Amino acid sequence: MSILVVGSVAFDSVETPFGKVEEVLGGSATYFSTSASFFTDVRLVAVVGEDFPPEHLNFLRSRNIDLAGLQVSAGATFRWQGRYGFDLNEAHTLDTRLNVLESFRPELPEGYEEAEYVFLANIDPELQLDVLKKVRRPRLIACDTMNFWIEGKREALLKTLRNVDIFLLNEGEARQLAAEPNLIKAARIILAMGPRTVVIKRGEYGVLMVTEHAIFSAPAYPLESVFDPTGAGDTFAGGFMGYLAATRDEGDAAVRKAIVFGSVMASFTVEDFSLERLRTLSYPQIEERYRKFKLLTEFEGIEEV
Amino acid sequence: MSILVVGSVAFDSVETPFGKVEEVLGGSATYFSTSASFFTDVRLVAVVGEDFPPEHLNFLRSRNIDLAGLQVSAGATFRWQGRYGFDLNEAHTLDTRLNVLESFRPELPEGYEEAEYVFLANIDPELQLDVLKKVRRPRLIACDTMNFWIEGKREALLKTLRNVDIFLLNEGEARQLAAEPNLIKAARIILAMGPRTVVIKRGEYGVLMVTEHAIFSAPAYPLESVFDPTGAGDTFAGGFMGYLAATRDEGDAAVRKAIVFGSVMASFTVEDFSLERLRTLSYPQIEERYRKFKLLTEFEGIEEV
Repeated sequence: MSILVVGSVAFDSVETPFGKVEEVLGGSATYFSTSASFFTDVRLVAVVGEDFPPEHLNFLRSRNIDLAGLQVSAGATFRWQGRYGFDLNEAHTLDTRLNVLESFRPELPEGYEEAEYVFLANIDPELQLDVLKKVRRPRLIACDTMNFWIEGKREALLKTLRNVDIFLLNEGEARQLAAEPNLIKAARIILAMGPRTVVIKRGEYGVLMVTEHAIFSAPAYPLESVFDPTGAGDTFAGGFMGYLAATRDEGDAAVRKAIVFGSVMASFTVEDFSLERLRTLSYPQIEERYRKFKLLTEFEGIEEV
Repeated sequence: MSILVVGSVAFDSVETPFGKVEEVLGGSATYFSTSASFFTDVRLVAVVGEDFPPEHLNFLRSRNIDLAGLQVSAGATFRWQGRYGFDLNEAHTLDTRLNVLESFRPELPEGYEEAEYVFLANIDPELQLDVLKKVRRPRLIACDTMNFWIEGKREALLKTLRNVDIFLLNEGEARQLAAEPNLIKAARIILAMGPRTVVIKRGEYGVLMVTEHAIFSAPAYPLESVFDPTGAGDTFAGGFMGYLAATRDEGDAAVRKAIVFGSVMASFTVEDFSLERLRTLSYPQIEERYRKFKLLTEFEGIEEV
């Protein structure tokens, strides 16, 4: 089952304590699509400028991502520049150039309005609403956001949330949106805004899922070398939605497994800059890390080593 | 099987965003002993001043804690004053008065040197070494420490670590001791210092256990109201060691369950100031929260709600 994703495609320039890259492939929709493509078909709705090179398009096509909804506009592709210190949990934005993203209006190619799975990656909530108006009757809608929209476009964001099944956001954003320091209380406040599931991303500390009836906590996969956390959240979302779409199951048990697959995917992305690690990743490697993830969290019924 | 613990007994004055208490019962050995007493017998080695009231002694006795090793010295009991902001993960120490702790030399009452389980709570590593010299042949030794000793008594601490099986410390301390920002690498560096198991406490993010062959990650139990995190780490250690001593099993599977029981105990402590919540706690409540902890972390073989 295919997923429709709307979000950004970007050139990222990133510096971490372990190295530096300039103008590499990035963007929320790029990470999401590539990650989800290991599980299901993806339809990408986004915009790039005329400077976007064919090799990046070829890479996305090689992952079976449908690019009919990728607009090419006059101007330059969106650029983001950021830096991470040793505390890799926090990105320091050095520069953001919206470029063609500034006048972007998502348009759905024919057939896209029948999408059953929709992911609204982190873009202006008014554009997220635009897309929601255009899709006919999705089976599952998930969305992401960021502090910038929580502050600047709260009303539009709240409108989006009323129509969303699963809301993914990070810990600080959850506290900010709910104006509540306790994370569980914050999650309950956000549930009352519309979503039936809130998935709170905590970087190196993993993920917390809260619904009316259940709480699920998954750690991040422990890594000895994290190179670049850029795109980890969108890669997580791609694995998460990809698994749900592939299984066509939205029950509590499926959502928990989807969170683990999302965490597994994110753990690969951070092992290298840009989407480098995902380019060489194979499904058996994903399955192997899923099994290790199980060993990481089990405390009953395990065998003695 | 009984546990010998050496550590501090204190009067704490604590302020959190949710309230304030003055001169309440506290101290690493107090929290540890009370928590462990739900699983096994405890022998407490510590010092108090002449100002220590009989009601506190009676409480500890009511928990079946053996106080033969609790010295009463001329002078005042150790006092700690601290404050927490909304980020309850970090204590800001306002005042520390060692008082009788300053000249404390642990002495073991007859029979204590045969202890099979030893916990060296957070005190001067030279005193920890003192105790290690006095016990004959323990089955399991665990210890805790703090940044103050890592900075000021590194050599003594390293000597202690060479003789310890399980080392419990918090995340920042692990990075500091190993001089390594990546936590898994830091844990491996610490393993090379002697312990065969490193248990890294991450406050509201739970616990990470690292051995040569395994990594286990447990979340903190999610709570809607955390009143006071004081003593959470020592309460964790008490549940952890208490479970290991009660089962007489130190295998990987037992250590994982012990971590969950420790986390469960800590989750009760933080629900109220001082040891208030532990005073009314019952073993069935511990078992119930252990079962909920299982639901919190499971992602395979769970039933649909």
